[in-house]
Amino acid sequence: MIRKYIFGSPFQTDAVVCDIPCSQGDVPHMKQENGENLSFSCQLGSADEVYGLGENVRGINKRGWRYCSCCVDEPNHTEDRQSLYAAHNFLVVRGQTCFGIFVDTPGVVTFDIGYTHLDEMTITLVYPDAAIYVFEGMCVLDIVKEFRTLIGRSYIPPKWAFGFQQSRWGYKTEEDIYRVVKMHRENHLPLDSIYLDIDYMERYKDFTVDRERMPHFEKMVQDLKEDHVHVVPIIDAGVKVEEGYAVYEEGIENGYFCKEEDGKEFTAGVWPGRVHFPDVLNPEARKWFGEQYRVLLDMGVDGFWNDMNEPSIFYAQDRLDSVIDQIAALKGRNLNLETFEQFMGAVRSLSDNREDYQKFYHQTPEGRMSHDRVHNLFGYYMTRAAGEAFERLCPDRRILMFSRSSYVGMHRYGGIWMGDNKSWWQHMLLNYKMQPSLNMVGFLYTGGDIGGFGADVTEDLLIRWMQMALFMPLMRNHSAMGTRQQEVYRFDNQKILRDTLHVRYGLLPYLYSEFMKAALGDEMYFKPLSFLYTEDAYAPQVEDQLLAGDSVMTAPVFVQNGKGRYVYLPEEMAMIRMRSLDDYDTDRYPAGHHYIEAGLNETLLFVRPDKMLIMSDGGEYTEDVHTDHMKVFAFVKTNAVYEWYDDDGMGKKYDDPEHMTKITVAADGTYTCEGRNIRLTVELL
Amino acid sequence: MIRKYIFGSPFQTDAVVCDIPCSQGDVPHMKQENGENLSFSCQLGSADEVYGLGENVRGINKRGWRYCSCCVDEPNHTEDRQSLYAAHNFLVVRGQTCFGIFVDTPGVVTFDIGYTHLDEMTITLVYPDAAIYVFEGMCVLDIVKEFRTLIGRSYIPPKWAFGFQQSRWGYKTEEDIYRVVKMHRENHLPLDSIYLDIDYMERYKDFTVDRERMPHFEKMVQDLKEDHVHVVPIIDAGVKVEEGYAVYEEGIENGYFCKEEDGKEFTAGVWPGRVHFPDVLNPEARKWFGEQYRVLLDMGVDGFWNDMNEPSIFYAQDRLDSVIDQIAALKGRNLNLETFEQFMGAVRSLSDNREDYQKFYHQTPEGRMSHDRVHNLFGYYMTRAAGEAFERLCPDRRILMFSRSSYVGMHRYGGIWMGDNKSWWQHMLLNYKMQPSLNMVGFLYTGGDIGGFGADVTEDLLIRWMQMALFMPLMRNHSAMGTRQQEVYRFDNQKILRDTLHVRYGLLPYLYSEFMKAALGDEMYFKPLSFLYTEDAYAPQVEDQLLAGDSVMTAPVFVQNGKGRYVYLPEEMAMIRMRSLDDYDTDRYPAGHHYIEAGLNETLLFVRPDKMLIMSDGGEYTEDVHTDHMKVFAFVKTNAVYEWYDDDGMGKKYDDPEHMTKITVAADGTYTCEGRNIRLTVELL
Repeated sequence: MIRKYIFGSPFQTDAVVCDIPCSQGDVPHMKQENGENLSFSCQLGSADEVYGLGENVRGINKRGWRYCSCCVDEPNHTEDRQSLYAAHNFLVVRGQTCFGIFVDTPGVVTFDIGYTHLDEMTITLVYPDAAIYVFEGMCVLDIVKEFRTLIGRSYIPPKWAFGFQQSRWGYKTEEDIYRVVKMHRENHLPLDSIYLDIDYMERYKDFTVDRERMPHFEKMVQDLKEDHVHVVPIIDAGVKVEEGYAVYEEGIENGYFCKEEDGKEFTAGVWPGRVHFPDVLNPEARKWFGEQYRVLLDMGVDGFWNDMNEPSIFYAQDRLDSVIDQIAALKGRNLNLETFEQFMGAVRSLSDNREDYQKFYHQTPEGRMSHDRVHNLFGYYMTRAAGEAFERLCPDRRILMFSRSSYVGMHRYGGIWMGDNKSWWQHMLLNYKMQPSLNMVGFLYTGGDIGGFGADVTEDLLIRWMQMALFMPLMRNHSAMGTRQQEVYRFDNQKILRDTLHVRYGLLPYLYSEFMKAALGDEMYFKPLSFLYTEDAYAPQVEDQLLAGDSVMTAPVFVQNGKGRYVYLPEEMAMIRMRSLDDYDTDRYPAGHHYIEAGLNETLLFVRPDKMLIMSDGGEYTEDVHTDHMKVFAFVKTNAVYEWYDDDGMGKKYDDPEHMTKITVAADGTYTCEGRNIRLTVELL
Repeated sequence: MIRKYIFGSPFQTDAVVCDIPCSQGDVPHMKQENGENLSFSCQLGSADEVYGLGENVRGINKRGWRYCSCCVDEPNHTEDRQSLYAAHNFLVVRGQTCFGIFVDTPGVVTFDIGYTHLDEMTITLVYPDAAIYVFEGMCVLDIVKEFRTLIGRSYIPPKWAFGFQQSRWGYKTEEDIYRVVKMHRENHLPLDSIYLDIDYMERYKDFTVDRERMPHFEKMVQDLKEDHVHVVPIIDAGVKVEEGYAVYEEGIENGYFCKEEDGKEFTAGVWPGRVHFPDVLNPEARKWFGEQYRVLLDMGVDGFWNDMNEPSIFYAQDRLDSVIDQIAALKGRNLNLETFEQFMGAVRSLSDNREDYQKFYHQTPEGRMSHDRVHNLFGYYMTRAAGEAFERLCPDRRILMFSRSSYVGMHRYGGIWMGDNKSWWQHMLLNYKMQPSLNMVGFLYTGGDIGGFGADVTEDLLIRWMQMALFMPLMRNHSAMGTRQQEVYRFDNQKILRDTLHVRYGLLPYLYSEFMKAALGDEMYFKPLSFLYTEDAYAPQVEDQLLAGDSVMTAPVFVQNGKGRYVYLPEEMAMIRMRSLDDYDTDRYPAGHHYIEAGLNETLLFVRPDKMLIMSDGGEYTEDVHTDHMKVFAFVKTNAVYEWYDDDGMGKKYDDPEHMTKITVAADGTYTCEGRNIRLTVELL
């Protein structure tokens, strides 16, 4: 049951794809507050849980903090932050009642979920224009499904994007790229793609290639493709101000950049120095910007990541000038607490300052809007620009696309990565917890930078993180310039890392199948225990275990020097303690609390009753993964059934019945296949 | 067994109090490396644990990171930091062999403990002058005791310093102070002291009182003392440069400040703006600086906290001038990645820049030394200045003293708090883990700011933190200006907070007794399970439970929305699930892993077999805690014995046999007291 309420004159965000008639009267479950801002509140029962908000800090249960939907370039992700890169204004309250709410507005929204008072939730909109949707259902999964149906089908990447991917800000030349790929291949470390961060561009200009560093870019792309490795370049939001640069000149000529009140282009500073932002909320400008991706597609590229599109602003040019003047004026003065704080405050004010958002405008179909009113849409619409272009330029072929910033609706055009995390055990856990919240709002193709982007990784952290990421659709090792080099081949325990990677390629048939079924059916791929085991009183406490697809529960080790962990089983399960594709032991555990050992080289996987985990024999890249023979780990109580989805991984015809194979394993280990005829080695758990 | 090795010409740090003959030959257990720096390394077995380093980030077992002893004003304490406020160069390796090492040098030292290679530890000294002590013993506790005996008896505060203490940067006037105290008293929230942060001073000048804000300072101190509340002002390291300010003028006249190469006083900027640093490594200057505390002692003050004594440097004056010029020169330029990073890098270079440490000097008994060579001693010697002065000025009376920065040896003059933590669940856990590491290096009177100093607290975090702090000797709620107000009377669930505070006052006799026995016997008050249960294979994994004294094990809840936790018992124990002094339930658990519920209002305490926990009936301040009647929670298997230490809490005669009372409880609940005759209510667990 979905109801829609309109407040003010909401901007058409295109978050939803279904037209729903407006309801009259009060928003159910929430009380509209009197006050300056449009605001709604409700009481929370002491046992109520609150789920949602997609990409944000803290737990799966969001109770006990205030969050703010305001997309921002925020690399610290500590507990006290309120905003990350995305605005995902959907949440579900479960407890005394069960309902969901989606606040569809492109401006800033705050969610006080038991912060001011433990038993109170308040949602406040900075601008009073919004479509508010309220969902009712029997359980969280019902409500999520209602929401997901409303917002449309999730983006589906090519199959190779489920392989292992390597990235680092710091690969500068063709030689760097070839060498990294070679080191993987030589050491039998499976790999499907390599990333180009900002250094491949000429002076950080979008859609250019630095021909000094990469004179044979097209050949490199082709060579690597023959080696089954895809090259994935970055695209930034800001377009460099530079005479003679075609994108800049076309944008100026056609008025396609965001402008200030007086009609002059707004100038911000990012990597290239001064840039203008493409006005992706203007349909014509969006089409033009999307068309630019053709340059790289024509060079053989078939994947992109859109970055800095909150948009990140190092400085607005006017403010920079003023701050420099303010600082210069302090020369010779005695800087005490107050005046030194003026100095530091001026410096801090430079970047991502919300006041600057009020200084530039978009030409939207609904007229001119200050950026501040539509801020949270920028990343979405930049990625939409690309997605719409891909539909025009290569309609029959999947292109890899994911973005840093996002809003609900962008999930139809691309995935996201979880932004600039750090090499912290804490961030590995945070990234893990984000997965189901992101699934709730339609983002299925997601993952955090493995090993951590900022700060220096340790070998054990990288190993544990790789194990944790075994089921993450986007499995990418990425790190920042200046941090410890963290390619998997750089560490002493390379065997553990290699074995873990081969397990990933073994898991690919299951992982791809579960991902695709979730995408095609508007389902969640990662689920917290509490969503499935709704009657289990302890399940809501479990935030470090997730169901990955229909068969498997994961329970990674998140603690340094940990040699095992506590695992809670809501029902009897079978465990696989995996060291490599060939080396594992298995056991059964009854429902309840268990302490289970897991050495540094061991990953704990759990198979639910009457479910199975299908595994290939692995491979060095996704195309090397064969499915004519597979191993099946089946935990059969009476009869285990698995619906296996597979396709060519590139095309967009998803509903072919040939894609489905039904595998049935009986208690004696005999099996049948309906659909494709595959040879199975059954291992009963 | 202690051996001492001399390298170069070590500076006499006065960390140790015993003279030990030097050994010749190689340092045992470690291999001296060839290379530019003095450096030692050893292999680590895969099961080896490494304990120590006092105040630092990460776990109790320090494996898996590189740490750096370089005292610094560092408020973030995230996993990637290497240095906090202290330099505690002592660690113990337990595994294949068991040995301790103390690197006594006042310069920077790095400890790579399985960072570069998981199985390797390397200690590197920036300056090659050091006394290195190596300890051997049967177990960690033996080695710690050897070390503690070598470095001398830990500081003992007055008994009232074990009561609850309230602080906030932001109390500005006498009215503020009176109001906070009144709110505690009116609401029956026990309190023993209130803190003055920097605002009580006139223009942030040490040893002055702002007479506009606090015209009747002496009366306030007296009034509050009559209300059993002690006023504890802050003292900063930097002395304001201001004509007519006596401390400044005396310091200049006598050459008591740190100077640059050319003899000019080194000028840094801190709260008051320009300051000079007292040369506390010069014995005459140290005596003079210590003498200044008399001003406040004479006003009735009997406690102090020494802050900013790493020393914290917001800027060196010369560098500030140069940075302002560099920034001004950027005006009008196109700031791209490289040049904007120059801008931001220049700003970051201002504070706590190690290059500045080479620009000023101390006049030590061993001649003129650049600050960089002796950096880690500054906080120690500032606090020593005070401690030595108190010995002269009030030899028979304990004065509360604790410091932010420290080095081994300072533990004889004062305690420490754990610096500027944040309102993070993660920091509550970090502060908990630091306690045993600090005890290892002699710091017994310690605690972290309850609720967190920076960032905004949540009500549940404050409650859980108060519960966690029940056994912390220094139990202080402290927060920064601009953050959410976090006095305990500001929250809805005041009853929980009140009950928790009353439990603290109930625990005081036990807590004080255990603290004093640890101090007088060079023992640890907080111990990890693995130190006591040396044969328990799982105990080293447990970093969120601690033994507090001889009878009790604590197991706080560290997770938001947590309704219980896993607890590991290395032996059978009795549990008290405490809601208030009168409201609790008890149970026994066998050795092993357990999941135990703990509601937001509940604290889990565990009593060891044949041990007991003595508890008073509570009180509103420490003097209100009576011990003629006590409750005893005894877990008697055959016979429980407790040696109860008590004294007047102010004097320094600790060895009076009258201070000890031996309590014996038999299995039937009958008891005897040898020493003081106290009335006990025995509750058998």
